[in-house]
Amino acid sequence: MSHGSGGRAMAQLIDELFRVHLDNPLLAQGNDQALFTPPPGRLVASTDGHVISPLFFPGGDIGALAVHGTVNDVAMAGARPLYLTASFILEEGLPLADLERIVASMGAAARAAGVQVVAGDTKVVERGKGDGCFISTTGIGVVPDGIQISGDLARPGDAILVSGSIGDHGVAILSKRENLGFETEIVSDCQALNDLVAVMIEAVPSIHCLRDPTRGGLATTLNELALQSRVGMQIREPLIPVRPEVSAACELLGLDPLYVANEGKLIAICPGDQAETLLAAMRAHPKGRDAAIIGQVVEDAHHFVQMETAFGGSRIVDWLAGEQLPRIC
Amino acid sequence: MSHGSGGRAMAQLIDELFRVHLDNPLLAQGNDQALFTPPPGRLVASTDGHVISPLFFPGGDIGALAVHGTVNDVAMAGARPLYLTASFILEEGLPLADLERIVASMGAAARAAGVQVVAGDTKVVERGKGDGCFISTTGIGVVPDGIQISGDLARPGDAILVSGSIGDHGVAILSKRENLGFETEIVSDCQALNDLVAVMIEAVPSIHCLRDPTRGGLATTLNELALQSRVGMQIREPLIPVRPEVSAACELLGLDPLYVANEGKLIAICPGDQAETLLAAMRAHPKGRDAAIIGQVVEDAHHFVQMETAFGGSRIVDWLAGEQLPRIC
Repeated sequence: MSHGSGGRAMAQLIDELFRVHLDNPLLAQGNDQALFTPPPGRLVASTDGHVISPLFFPGGDIGALAVHGTVNDVAMAGARPLYLTASFILEEGLPLADLERIVASMGAAARAAGVQVVAGDTKVVERGKGDGCFISTTGIGVVPDGIQISGDLARPGDAILVSGSIGDHGVAILSKRENLGFETEIVSDCQALNDLVAVMIEAVPSIHCLRDPTRGGLATTLNELALQSRVGMQIREPLIPVRPEVSAACELLGLDPLYVANEGKLIAICPGDQAETLLAAMRAHPKGRDAAIIGQVVEDAHHFVQMETAFGGSRIVDWLAGEQLPRIC
Repeated sequence: MSHGSGGRAMAQLIDELFRVHLDNPLLAQGNDQALFTPPPGRLVASTDGHVISPLFFPGGDIGALAVHGTVNDVAMAGARPLYLTASFILEEGLPLADLERIVASMGAAARAAGVQVVAGDTKVVERGKGDGCFISTTGIGVVPDGIQISGDLARPGDAILVSGSIGDHGVAILSKRENLGFETEIVSDCQALNDLVAVMIEAVPSIHCLRDPTRGGLATTLNELALQSRVGMQIREPLIPVRPEVSAACELLGLDPLYVANEGKLIAICPGDQAETLLAAMRAHPKGRDAAIIGQVVEDAHHFVQMETAFGGSRIVDWLAGEQLPRIC
């Protein structure tokens, strides 16, 4: 508890742990706020709380996730993420070694994504009033001139693309949580997508929408975009990439991969005549190798997402109702 | 739990509660990030997690506190706070009426301080894995040209000022927590200080340091500044404003008001010859009515904070060691 008091123990924790792993000139200012001069123009800000359980999982941990999740939300405006802030809420008794592993992972993820953690805060709550470690990150990025990407810009005739296989993250977490030993270990797709987005907007500056299908999965995110843009969507099930092992695990667990969270995939919507150009740019990048065009935007006053199934039928893909997988991010 | 799932229940919660109370054009964009064009120049960003217990206390609640705390951290760079983001971590079972009261209070505090909550996130954890409501806020502000305020700029000969009585917040929380019924109710000083800071930097643009003495209180904050600026400080106990009822409560509770948290006070350090001008500007503002010059910056290789006591003696005012009042903010 004394590490959250604002006193000497907290100052030591900051010096010996946070400054070591997250070091950068802005954080080193040592004030209660970071001062910087961003490039002129439009900025975006986004915030996300991370409460994932367990803290460490195949393919990542809460530290890396807290960086990737917020970097991706910033990048989904077509922006270049520059600065992050991080607020830690720790439960009394969290082993310092676990905290160090988390912060080190955060630092590595930030360096890899080209962002700086410029400000932070740590609070400690009593045992039983938290759950190890929660991290809220906020990201700030700059939007290149001429780029206009927003969830309300999908238009009938647009193509819908996804950057790779869906469901990996949610199934990885659940199999770890339930101690399911699948033959092939399923690994979270937890990764920063800002580099992929950069090549995409260079290839097709007229992209209309980008969004990462996290909580609620592909199905819920498409419904959000359809509602926001006041359009309908038609997708084709056989075109949606799902790894065979994820598909098998979903069957076993009674999950629909369309609703399972992802942490390293994006949905892109662009004018139909640009779809092949965009697809080629995505496939040329390692994080978009398995990208696919999965459907199109249509006129629909009900803003439905409809899916042609593998058997040739058609069904409405609704919003996630209730909860599927709690604390997945 | 379903309100944290990313699905329909969460979309409803956002529409019916967060959008209603925090409404502004940037939040209404409805994307996973907010897009805005700040005034050109230097920006500051600051983040703070709020885990105060109880959620509602005399003089405020966690919603107002989450706005004031971050607005103040931004303002302590001399900056004008413009944008806030808010990340909520809710415990399953938190009454929706409590959440609404918190968010409404947050909205009112933001409007009063002239800032917009431009992006938010909500996560829900299982009963027993949180404690009602935690809120992490991040603030972004713009620094006026010519202003250079930082914790490392205190110089020997500078004057040390405080904007009003200390210890109110911590004692208010503790008396509520312990159900102590004092004759005079002690109320938290929880308030936004950006308007006070604006008149201060207009009167004395050469202010060297500003910092709000929250966790760890006046004593710890002065030690932080002394260390950061590599100077010593001499303060005089009789000059430090403490309300009689706070002083009495501290005696009863075995607390030293120097270490008790504040949420609506600031420390200012400025060139000695500007101190009276700064004091006059502070006292002319309702939030600085009880401002006082409490001491001066001196040369000291040990970076000690020394205090002349009411009885004419002298003692070293050390950092807070261990914890005094957990979860005070």
